[in-house]
Amino acid sequence: MTRPDNRAADALRPVTFKRNWTMHAEGSVLVEFGATRVLCTASVETGVPRWRRGSGAGWVTAEYSMLPRATTTRGDREAVRGKVGGRTHEISRLIGRALRSCLDFKALGENTIMIDCDVLQADGGTRTAAITGGYVALQDAVSWITDKKIARKPDRILTRSVSAVSVGVVKGVPLLDLCYEEDAAADVDMNVVCTGDGDFVEVQGTGENAVFDRARLDAMLDLAAKGCKELTGMQVRALLS
Amino acid sequence: MTRPDNRAADALRPVTFKRNWTMHAEGSVLVEFGATRVLCTASVETGVPRWRRGSGAGWVTAEYSMLPRATTTRGDREAVRGKVGGRTHEISRLIGRALRSCLDFKALGENTIMIDCDVLQADGGTRTAAITGGYVALQDAVSWITDKKIARKPDRILTRSVSAVSVGVVKGVPLLDLCYEEDAAADVDMNVVCTGDGDFVEVQGTGENAVFDRARLDAMLDLAAKGCKELTGMQVRALLS
Amino acid sequence: MTRPDNRAADALRPVTFKRNWTMHAEGSVLVEFGATRVLCTASVETGVPRWRRGSGAGWVTAEYSMLPRATTTRGDREAVRGKVGGRTHEISRLIGRALRSCLDFKALGENTIMIDCDVLQADGGTRTAAITGGYVALQDAVSWITDKKIARKPDRILTRSVSAVSVGVVKGVPLLDLCYEEDAAADVDMNVVCTGDGDFVEVQGTGENAVFDRARLDAMLDLAAKGCKELTGMQVRALLS
Amino acid sequence: MTRPDNRAADALRPVTFKRNWTMHAEGSVLVEFGATRVLCTASVETGVPRWRRGSGAGWVTAEYSMLPRATTTRGDREAVRGKVGGRTHEISRLIGRALRSCLDFKALGENTIMIDCDVLQADGGTRTAAITGGYVALQDAVSWITDKKIARKPDRILTRSVSAVSVGVVKGVPLLDLCYEEDAAADVDMNVVCTGDGDFVEVQGTGENAVFDRARLDAMLDLAAKGCKELTGMQVRALLS
Amino acid sequence: MTRPDNRAADALRPVTFKRNWTMHAEGSVLVEFGATRVLCTASVETGVPRWRRGSGAGWVTAEYSMLPRATTTRGDREAVRGKVGGRTHEISRLIGRALRSCLDFKALGENTIMIDCDVLQADGGTRTAAITGGYVALQDAVSWITDKKIARKPDRILTRSVSAVSVGVVKGVPLLDLCYEEDAAADVDMNVVCTGDGDFVEVQGTGENAVFDRARLDAMLDLAAKGCKELTGMQVRALLS
Amino acid sequence: MTRPDNRAADALRPVTFKRNWTMHAEGSVLVEFGATRVLCTASVETGVPRWRRGSGAGWVTAEYSMLPRATTTRGDREAVRGKVGGRTHEISRLIGRALRSCLDFKALGENTIMIDCDVLQADGGTRTAAITGGYVALQDAVSWITDKKIARKPDRILTRSVSAVSVGVVKGVPLLDLCYEEDAAADVDMNVVCTGDGDFVEVQGTGENAVFDRARLDAMLDLAAKGCKELTGMQVRALLS
Repeated sequence: MTRPDNRAADALRPVTFKRNWTMHAEGSVLVEFGATRVLCTASVETGVPRWRRGSGAGWVTAEYSMLPRATTTRGDREAVRGKVGGRTHEISRLIGRALRSCLDFKALGENTIMIDCDVLQADGGTRTAAITGGYVALQDAVSWITDKKIARKPDRILTRSVSAVSVGVVKGVPLLDLCYEEDAAADVDMNVVCTGDGDFVEVQGTGENAVFDRARLDAMLDLAAKGCKELTGMQVRALLS
Repeated sequence: MTRPDNRAADALRPVTFKRNWTMHAEGSVLVEFGATRVLCTASVETGVPRWRRGSGAGWVTAEYSMLPRATTTRGDREAVRGKVGGRTHEISRLIGRALRSCLDFKALGENTIMIDCDVLQADGGTRTAAITGGYVALQDAVSWITDKKIARKPDRILTRSVSAVSVGVVKGVPLLDLCYEEDAAADVDMNVVCTGDGDFVEVQGTGENAVFDRARLDAMLDLAAKGCKELTGMQVRALLS
Repeated sequence: MTRPDNRAADALRPVTFKRNWTMHAEGSVLVEFGATRVLCTASVETGVPRWRRGSGAGWVTAEYSMLPRATTTRGDREAVRGKVGGRTHEISRLIGRALRSCLDFKALGENTIMIDCDVLQADGGTRTAAITGGYVALQDAVSWITDKKIARKPDRILTRSVSAVSVGVVKGVPLLDLCYEEDAAADVDMNVVCTGDGDFVEVQGTGENAVFDRARLDAMLDLAAKGCKELTGMQVRALLS
Repeated sequence: MTRPDNRAADALRPVTFKRNWTMHAEGSVLVEFGATRVLCTASVETGVPRWRRGSGAGWVTAEYSMLPRATTTRGDREAVRGKVGGRTHEISRLIGRALRSCLDFKALGENTIMIDCDVLQADGGTRTAAITGGYVALQDAVSWITDKKIARKPDRILTRSVSAVSVGVVKGVPLLDLCYEEDAAADVDMNVVCTGDGDFVEVQGTGENAVFDRARLDAMLDLAAKGCKELTGMQVRALLS
Repeated sequence: MTRPDNRAADALRPVTFKRNWTMHAEGSVLVEFGATRVLCTASVETGVPRWRRGSGAGWVTAEYSMLPRATTTRGDREAVRGKVGGRTHEISRLIGRALRSCLDFKALGENTIMIDCDVLQADGGTRTAAITGGYVALQDAVSWITDKKIARKPDRILTRSVSAVSVGVVKGVPLLDLCYEEDAAADVDMNVVCTGDGDFVEVQGTGENAVFDRARLDAMLDLAAKGCKELTGMQVRALLS
Repeated sequence: MTRPDNRAADALRPVTFKRNWTMHAEGSVLVEFGATRVLCTASVETGVPRWRRGSGAGWVTAEYSMLPRATTTRGDREAVRGKVGGRTHEISRLIGRALRSCLDFKALGENTIMIDCDVLQADGGTRTAAITGGYVALQDAVSWITDKKIARKPDRILTRSVSAVSVGVVKGVPLLDLCYEEDAAADVDMNVVCTGDGDFVEVQGTGENAVFDRARLDAMLDLAAKGCKELTGMQVRALLS
């Protein structure tokens, strides 16, 4: 089986991180996984949500959204429909959980970092691009906090890094980092979030068109671990540049 | 480590299925996983959603909800707040995907089965109880369809069964079927949906308080497979009685 | 005229109260009027709504809802539609008014008791079952408050009891406690809330299909008074058991 | 006890009907019960709601609303809050039921008459003024239909008239047609809708601050019957002028 | 070209202001521009919106709405649809900006004046009638404040007056104060708000059916200035009466 | 007075148009007015809104939105708040009107072009950039239609071009194309939409902090006309490249 762009089954698409892509946010990264393009901004705000006040600990939360014409056919705006859809809610929650695993909230103090992930162009893997780019924006925002010395222990806020990638099985073949065409044809679809050390933060595998056995699950987890390892390296290089 | 109810680490709580618990629905099952109690009804409706019309294929969808005082402290009603929350959306989608994996939609014809899962009392594992009980309600609804001969090929609608269970790691120990007290203390939490044949339909593992390595993931998957196998047996017995 | 279940015109359906039906709420009663089955929970919360703060007086409020498949055909969830319907609002307000008539709010102090009435199965008379069962749940919650001594004058909170019943005129015959089949055929429909002493708290009679004269109104009020008297006796017995 | 305007206990406030008060609606009546001022318009529309299509029968529905500063302190607009409140829902439903009792829907054919009741100034009794004025607007709209001969049997659409009045018990004295000051002080409050022939259409009595016995209920019903009889006469005169 | 009511091209329709039209509001004016009839109430409230607290300065805001049958065909209620439409939002904002230009907010102190403009009958020019009548209601509310001495410098709150009028080009002819029939036929439509001194506060010209050159724009501005000057005179006379 | 970027009072900021900036939309333009950056996409859809069906004529509509962190401080998402704000509504309507003035809808046939303007980075003048860039996206979409020959008279759809610019008065000096810092300090703010031929389509001038006389209005209109003429030239060059 040949992939649309002739990649190997275990190859990522070209990945780029454009830091400081917009000028107002404390962290702002345009991340591209092939044709998928997501703008991740990190906004630092004083204070925490009501339920966390007085805890001495900070918070990170995320919101994901797609521009109406990020996709092949235009989707209605959720603001116009008057409510956030189930898929959007689910992805926003996933991104938030993944990025919260990177921080020592006590070190952050009662400050909130809001991660906004807006998909400007979609070609599969938008949520994994959002997490991977969102981490870079988060680190830039933490650096801003560190520079300003506005947290309790600014040096120790970040305790690990995360990246994420999709894997799937298409016509019986496990593939890494599916584009939209592959995603639409996949029997099994899995999103995996790993730390820079190779541990798992989140594993979400779904077989709506087919079920999968343990061997297939293991093959997908192997691919994902490889992909996340490569993404971690790219994040490090982007943050050094 | 001792569990609150002295269960073994790999033991399920007592599970019961009360079929025909209400009188109007085509399938109606009160499922209990220990103190967790979920009413699952399956409603058969002629026709399918607009985007599926003319396909000749049916549909299954699910809605999950909690009664306000199913939990230790009262939660606001989503109807009063005017919107469905992210967690509810996410669980409803999970139940729908899991149950859709059981059917041949062409055999069902253009009919819809709506699965409602209302949590009457919560003590951990409500979504996995909902899937496991929802399957029993679904099979009762399919039997009703078969009796009425209202589908295209009523004998062949169900192609497999599903059950689900939660697993987690508490103080370093992998545990099967967490109650609320355990769930609140877990470092890693995983929900697994399996078919009656032991394949995976959905694997969702989350480490918000901790990350997990491959060995831990494997241990949790083993527990889940064991739990789902037992649940499958209970479903079969319930459906025979 | 024969009633579907061969009852006399002035007879109630079998009524049961199952106290402590769920484990988390301070009061929890599953009430059945024939096939109508309503779960009434009473939740005690510290504090009162904003407009009542500083008054030294407590509050009771109620929310009524139907599970989607409590009825013969499935109804949409109000949470999914994003708003509470007119009928639901109206019944919630009725239940709240009825139960508020039982309390000395100064004795309760600035505490709120929230009564949730969720219809698990509907066969006519859901609002009257909700009030009658809600009173039992309310008394259990007040006993809990009394035991905890958390109110100002816990011994004097409840000043009277209430129960409620529907009456109607079907094919010219006044009937007590209508089931769904009778309710759908009724020319006049009336819901009456009485105290344990036989006074009226609320009288709501509606003749959408027909009008009614004073004699008919008197006949319905007589039936309702008789029904409420019997329900009061059953409440007392349930609370003693 | 003296009433604020020195009326007798069984006297109505001055009542006026200004027909054709606005120019666009098929029926348009400004009704005044003392200082309470409600604009009732009746709009004739071809067709009926979806659930009634093909029945050959028409429909009447009503919407009630208050201008923000109809009251002593400004109330928020329901459009701005994004939802219709429970009280508004309840009153709209009451008005609709009351006016629907006047028509032969088969004679109306598949046409809808929409009654809008907007309270321009409130001083108690807004819902009863709305029903009483709404009937006059309804009759003007039916005359318009009759003139245009657009219904099936335009001569026979209206089968009876309705009017409505509030009664209550203030400091132990039953009073007819309460103004706001009296309403706020009432122990029992009742709204009664009668036909022109003196039958009841709707009886809604509520004792939130007190309960009431049968004798008191009878006294209130007597007052209401007297009040509605007088209102019927005024409606007839207004429609003849 | 003859206008429907034979007015000259530069003539206003008959304009009336009925002050104290309702009894509860601090300012209450029924303004009529021909058949257009708008009820403008001004409500004085202690305090200011959250974002303005502690500034020592007051605030004025406005809400515009149409009764459902103010127009030739009935419009749905925004409360029932659950959201305020774009046109309503736009006009409310325009009225608020126009009226805010009249006040010294420091002199007002931390008090809010809420202007409600409800269109009882529409025949073109509802927003300009609302501004012109709203100013009169505003001045009455300010007089009430001055009488009560509840502002910081009650004598100096109002610093100028405003009025507004529509102008347009119909079949090539610039016209002042368009009625609905003219408005519907206009190629260009413009709303102009002027101060009593003849300065501009707001100029909004729109050519959806046609574009317009500078000469036409100048002609419309001339007409508007003339119209506002006359309206200013009428406001002064109404406030003196 | 010196401008923040040392521009002359009558100079535009650097303006760029990046066509085909995203790959899915029929027209896709990233427009920059200095640091203001707006993504304008034009989506062609078969069919028209319900109220226009059967007319043989097409439709153009627009939606404007800001990414949460397009601005110096993060704004809440309208989707999360559950409603579109007044400012967003107002700007969306302005863009729609401006772009509709360019088309012959009969020539377009019953097709709709949806213009989405999403502000990626804001520094004043977002609505005028949206109109100016939106026109370029619209022309690309019309070219796509022309190529596909899917309209009635594809050659004649566009009848004119539009561009827009803001002008204002800052410290007494009329300025063209205000950046955010200038806009915040302006006494008068005006947005002007012109055709390529120099006619006006829309003129919106607002003096919330000050009023303005005719001379000032004329000076602003002169500046705007000059700015739009230059923008028209840039649009032509961008479309030729």
